[in-house]
Amino acid sequence: MKLGILGGGQLARMMALAAYPLNIKCAFLDPAEDACAGPLGQLINAPYDDEAGLKKLATASDCVTFEFENVPAAALKTLADQTPVYPPYKALLTTQDRLVEKNLFKKLNIGTAPFAEVNSLEELEKVVEQLGRPAILKTRRLGYDGKGQAVIRKETNLSEAWQSIGEVPATLEGFVPFDREVSIISVRDRKGETHFYSLVENVHQNGILHISTVLENDPAQEQAEKIVKTLIDELDYVGVLVLELFQVGDKLLANEFAPRVHNSGHWTIEGAYTSQFENHVRAVTGLPLGQTNSLCPTAMINIVGDLPDTNAILKIAGANLHLYNKAPREGRKTGHVTVCAKTADELKARVDQVLELIK
Amino acid sequence: MKLGILGGGQLARMMALAAYPLNIKCAFLDPAEDACAGPLGQLINAPYDDEAGLKKLATASDCVTFEFENVPAAALKTLADQTPVYPPYKALLTTQDRLVEKNLFKKLNIGTAPFAEVNSLEELEKVVEQLGRPAILKTRRLGYDGKGQAVIRKETNLSEAWQSIGEVPATLEGFVPFDREVSIISVRDRKGETHFYSLVENVHQNGILHISTVLENDPAQEQAEKIVKTLIDELDYVGVLVLELFQVGDKLLANEFAPRVHNSGHWTIEGAYTSQFENHVRAVTGLPLGQTNSLCPTAMINIVGDLPDTNAILKIAGANLHLYNKAPREGRKTGHVTVCAKTADELKARVDQVLELIK
Repeated sequence: MKLGILGGGQLARMMALAAYPLNIKCAFLDPAEDACAGPLGQLINAPYDDEAGLKKLATASDCVTFEFENVPAAALKTLADQTPVYPPYKALLTTQDRLVEKNLFKKLNIGTAPFAEVNSLEELEKVVEQLGRPAILKTRRLGYDGKGQAVIRKETNLSEAWQSIGEVPATLEGFVPFDREVSIISVRDRKGETHFYSLVENVHQNGILHISTVLENDPAQEQAEKIVKTLIDELDYVGVLVLELFQVGDKLLANEFAPRVHNSGHWTIEGAYTSQFENHVRAVTGLPLGQTNSLCPTAMINIVGDLPDTNAILKIAGANLHLYNKAPREGRKTGHVTVCAKTADELKARVDQVLELIK
Repeated sequence: MKLGILGGGQLARMMALAAYPLNIKCAFLDPAEDACAGPLGQLINAPYDDEAGLKKLATASDCVTFEFENVPAAALKTLADQTPVYPPYKALLTTQDRLVEKNLFKKLNIGTAPFAEVNSLEELEKVVEQLGRPAILKTRRLGYDGKGQAVIRKETNLSEAWQSIGEVPATLEGFVPFDREVSIISVRDRKGETHFYSLVENVHQNGILHISTVLENDPAQEQAEKIVKTLIDELDYVGVLVLELFQVGDKLLANEFAPRVHNSGHWTIEGAYTSQFENHVRAVTGLPLGQTNSLCPTAMINIVGDLPDTNAILKIAGANLHLYNKAPREGRKTGHVTVCAKTADELKARVDQVLELIK
């Protein structure tokens, strides 16, 4: 069995590491010669929209999946014409456009922050009137890790904000005074069987995920599962799907979903019976799903940019280091640390030790 | 950092999988073109005693380790002349010869079954008189998984037994009516810091390890740690060392040790904070050791020869499948299953489900 993966970054790398024990080989399509998943399988060096490269990936693979969602629609079609593609590309096309995504939530009666379409400065002025300030202007396409966004504060000049995001089709989202941001990791197999991991609380820093803490038996677990179940069934989804949610009081509001393994699920490598990577590989290749229960109190801290003192991290009890072998750049994820412990208090103490080393 | 490994089998494969997240690359020397670790790093195809191949491995690597102990002494010297070699080759040379190994236990006051040297049929006759029947005749060199052994029962013809092991230098070991067989996995870093995993109870089938069950808080843990500490310090050891012991009443008797990661430690991938593979890699490359505590009740069952219904295994809650991508042959280990659970009872029920599929 060979699994083709569009993209050869850290997510593909961790999928390949999970695939080996299942005797599943991987092929990666990535334009970068030093793609960090490359050494773990067959690396096809080509742009993501290169027809020959895509055909090569499809021919080399029994089925194809993705490590990111911004795959050109034409590339998806080229792949799907030749080999099974999971998750279904309807899911990818939905997440490629914030407005389509938000409208799907609306259609499914999944609560969101108030939002509106913005296609011009005039429209922006109008909807800012309606939704009030603060609000967040986000490009409909190609935004990630806080890129392609502008916060509309009391003093913000709308023309400048509109220019800052490149004057492209966008959404304006009303500001939600949320108590916390959580994500729910779900996985669905080809027969529709669905499992959920424990809810995760996420804290961002400069628009990039900083720390995820697993919430065992959280009161919001059931509500989150119900919401993501509605979504994953509607999409007739196969693979891991992660839904980010804002919690306001008792209520969860959908922010966005990722049709792939997700940074807020990296903790599952050590902290759950079956990791999100293994379960994604199992799902897309048609294997039965593994148990998603947690093993112990767990948290995950991202390493962004330059590496910290990794030897000092290795010395911390319960800390597991994951380096991606990527050249450090500002704002680039270069690794993560999973911290496991026997109790919540022990976890907190260990996380604090890691945070002394990763600011 | 690049780690050279002599051997490219499943142990090297699992070491390489553990090395990736630490940003450590691996090179393997193995005569087999389809060595199952091969796809995970640089595969140097050459016999284990091939000078050019060994030099290539040494040049490619910052340090070298082993996945098996029967490395020719000349090969060890070739490697050690060019690059740091861990574990120390004194440990390998010791385990290559059962008599030397047993004499080391004796010197360190580590209890063993009664044993004697056998170099001829005449000597065999003499020591069988002394040690009594039943007893086990074992070649001093190159025995594993029950090979190179003959049981001397009441009715056994000694001449035939002597011929059956090839009339080579051997030991005779008195039969020990042991209550159980256990192993202790220890790891020691370059500075002498040593950690121990929970004791494991092992059951063999046809001379091959069948099932290992982790013994949490076992009364014999302290005694086992003390024994292996004496050994590992004497050898000024670096890496994972596994000592197999017979328990007779309250007392532990040393059987043999492996100067490497070991089948009875495979459970640590899922069942411990840091796996034996990662800790071996950390130790030999000079990194700090990781925590060896157990996460949950765990057991490991070997897959020998033809693969069972692997999809059925994947359906069992808490079961993790590890396939080695090796062509099935009778008596050849082709994979293993780790089973994790919340309680000992749940573990037993899950193990029974796996054993329905792996006879």
